[in-house]
Amino acid sequence: MSQSSKRAQATQFSPIRMLEPLADQARHRGVKIYHLNIGQPDIPTPEVFLNGMRMIPPVLAYSPSQGLDEARQALAGYYEDRDINISPAQIVITTGGSEAIIFSLLAVADPGDAILIPEPYYANYNAYATMAGVRIIPIESRPESGFHLPDRAAIEGLITPRTRAILICNPGNPTGTVYRPDELELLAELARQHDLFLISDEVYREFVYDGLSHTSVLQLANLAQQAILVDSISKRFSACGARIGALLSRNPDIMQSVLKFAQARLSPPTLGQLGLIALLRTGDYHRQVEQIIEKFGRRRDRLYAELQRIPGVRCAKPQGAFYVIAGLPVDSAELFCRWLLAEFELDGETVMLAPAAAFYHTLGRGQDEVRLAYVLDEEALGRALQIVRAGLAAYPGRS
Amino acid sequence: MSQSSKRAQATQFSPIRMLEPLADQARHRGVKIYHLNIGQPDIPTPEVFLNGMRMIPPVLAYSPSQGLDEARQALAGYYEDRDINISPAQIVITTGGSEAIIFSLLAVADPGDAILIPEPYYANYNAYATMAGVRIIPIESRPESGFHLPDRAAIEGLITPRTRAILICNPGNPTGTVYRPDELELLAELARQHDLFLISDEVYREFVYDGLSHTSVLQLANLAQQAILVDSISKRFSACGARIGALLSRNPDIMQSVLKFAQARLSPPTLGQLGLIALLRTGDYHRQVEQIIEKFGRRRDRLYAELQRIPGVRCAKPQGAFYVIAGLPVDSAELFCRWLLAEFELDGETVMLAPAAAFYHTLGRGQDEVRLAYVLDEEALGRALQIVRAGLAAYPGRS
Repeated sequence: MSQSSKRAQATQFSPIRMLEPLADQARHRGVKIYHLNIGQPDIPTPEVFLNGMRMIPPVLAYSPSQGLDEARQALAGYYEDRDINISPAQIVITTGGSEAIIFSLLAVADPGDAILIPEPYYANYNAYATMAGVRIIPIESRPESGFHLPDRAAIEGLITPRTRAILICNPGNPTGTVYRPDELELLAELARQHDLFLISDEVYREFVYDGLSHTSVLQLANLAQQAILVDSISKRFSACGARIGALLSRNPDIMQSVLKFAQARLSPPTLGQLGLIALLRTGDYHRQVEQIIEKFGRRRDRLYAELQRIPGVRCAKPQGAFYVIAGLPVDSAELFCRWLLAEFELDGETVMLAPAAAFYHTLGRGQDEVRLAYVLDEEALGRALQIVRAGLAAYPGRS
Repeated sequence: MSQSSKRAQATQFSPIRMLEPLADQARHRGVKIYHLNIGQPDIPTPEVFLNGMRMIPPVLAYSPSQGLDEARQALAGYYEDRDINISPAQIVITTGGSEAIIFSLLAVADPGDAILIPEPYYANYNAYATMAGVRIIPIESRPESGFHLPDRAAIEGLITPRTRAILICNPGNPTGTVYRPDELELLAELARQHDLFLISDEVYREFVYDGLSHTSVLQLANLAQQAILVDSISKRFSACGARIGALLSRNPDIMQSVLKFAQARLSPPTLGQLGLIALLRTGDYHRQVEQIIEKFGRRRDRLYAELQRIPGVRCAKPQGAFYVIAGLPVDSAELFCRWLLAEFELDGETVMLAPAAAFYHTLGRGQDEVRLAYVLDEEALGRALQIVRAGLAAYPGRS
């Protein structure tokens, strides 16, 4: 009997998508579902981006493996506007941010090597680490301190000769945490002293609220050898389906390695690059991004206010991205999420949430927590949270 | 000094793209280059496919990780037309055939496991195996026998307890070999008896000449557990830049495993799926594919005839795909390919070829061979081969 590999068996289904079969069944019963489980923004993709993608050459050919020159030049301009000085040669365009992370891991670590990641972290990092044969060592961060980093000793104590990198998500998915410059400087120091790479997943870079400013890993001084930026246009330009991300580094050895992996898979999608070029060539996108961020800021406020009003719910106010981790007064958040889809409805409607345990590496953490993505308009968010509130009141496994 | 991983350092640059910097320099000198190095067809992408991609919804969202339902249904219909009985649930849409191969390797093998591949083989398999931490064991095939398989004992002798799969490319890149039904039945027998997966990369399935018919791995009897089909629409619909491939299997355990990896990277490109749906819904594409194959058949004839006319060149007549492996009368095929770009021109034109050594696993094989892709029209092929002929006559390293 031919069986899957052990690593395939050990890989989890995505906690963000694992309940899709239950959601399908609910939809078939005619139940309307508010999707707070997945970071799929509802914002229309900018027209100029869509029009750029419609300008397809007669032969829809591969692009260069590193991406179209014009796309890399346009991206370099985007980073320059964000006070990040980078040349097109220091950019490889990837198939989404996902591929940029996989390439990063393959380029910095060998099988059996370890990387440090503050937990809770984006659950798909587990699958990427499995694919790359790399071990994840979690750095504990706590809701009470807004999921900010612990002190230097707590991190340094985790570093061994097999540690090759620290991977952060900034602003954080699923935490919404925006790291302070002093936290980033601490990580940079550790990277320099212990010869580690510092990989920063900044796909939510633009999504920062309350007047906070975001510091990129590429803005840290004396870190050219160690800094790797993982990026994606999916969220900020609401172009998730274009599958366009990027990997940036000033370390030529890393860029050479990444190019090899990029060549093996031939080409990132060509059309998304055409859309990106068209969008970035207009000066207009800054204003569009600003409007999107303002909108998400209001959604953040609304969601946080609604959560505060539900008895027994605990959460830190997110500073960025569009997620929040909330502790619920339930026996098991996963059972509650399943129950919402399978057994509950409020006037024919229910809510899909992502159970948070899979965002933790440490067994037992996050059992009563969910991740909520605030990717719907304020009214829909209000209604969705009304359903969560009613669900919690009716749920038989309330703790 | 932060360095790349050992596996990154050990990974080769793609032999298909490794000479691009030299080609760039030649272009800057004003030299026109005929690209026989890469399998990028010159055929216009079908209009209906392009129009399908222009029908972008207002939010360019992720598709389901396994692909859009409509795209999987349309693909199931395509396979039915090709006498392959498969359900949409047995199809996962991937980001090109490349990703389908990576997912296959991750799903069937653990780090340190081995897979058998007839050599010469598509050079990028090396990088995929490195990414997956899998060892490649080559099955020797020879130009004298048209790169067909050796006998049973020669293959069976390579199988060890760590062998997990046999991977074939049928029709073959870079050989153009189309395996006979008896060869495939031999591999199927070995797979059943030794509990191996049989992964068949059939991205060139439609490209078969001389009235030969192609047998898919999914058409072999009693192989539901072992058979995995890797496919791509890139070549047959001239849509390389869409990055749409597929992985098919009737083994539910494998499909479950593949879905986990697919969920981790979220979504294949959405627009390519829209184009595919539009194309497959027309009954018209069969005729278009037939016309493309006829055209490539004529190109194959032209290229083969031209190669026969060059003194000292040896090659087997390809039966399928659009490549040929040719032995050249030179000291080193790689040095000759470099020299063509860096130092040679005929009336302001030259040719880019892929050195073939990287398509072999066994050190020393293929040193005097190149792979030629016949992806240009007949006139251009004639001119390109005229340049190769003149280049060989002038090359100082002639053997």
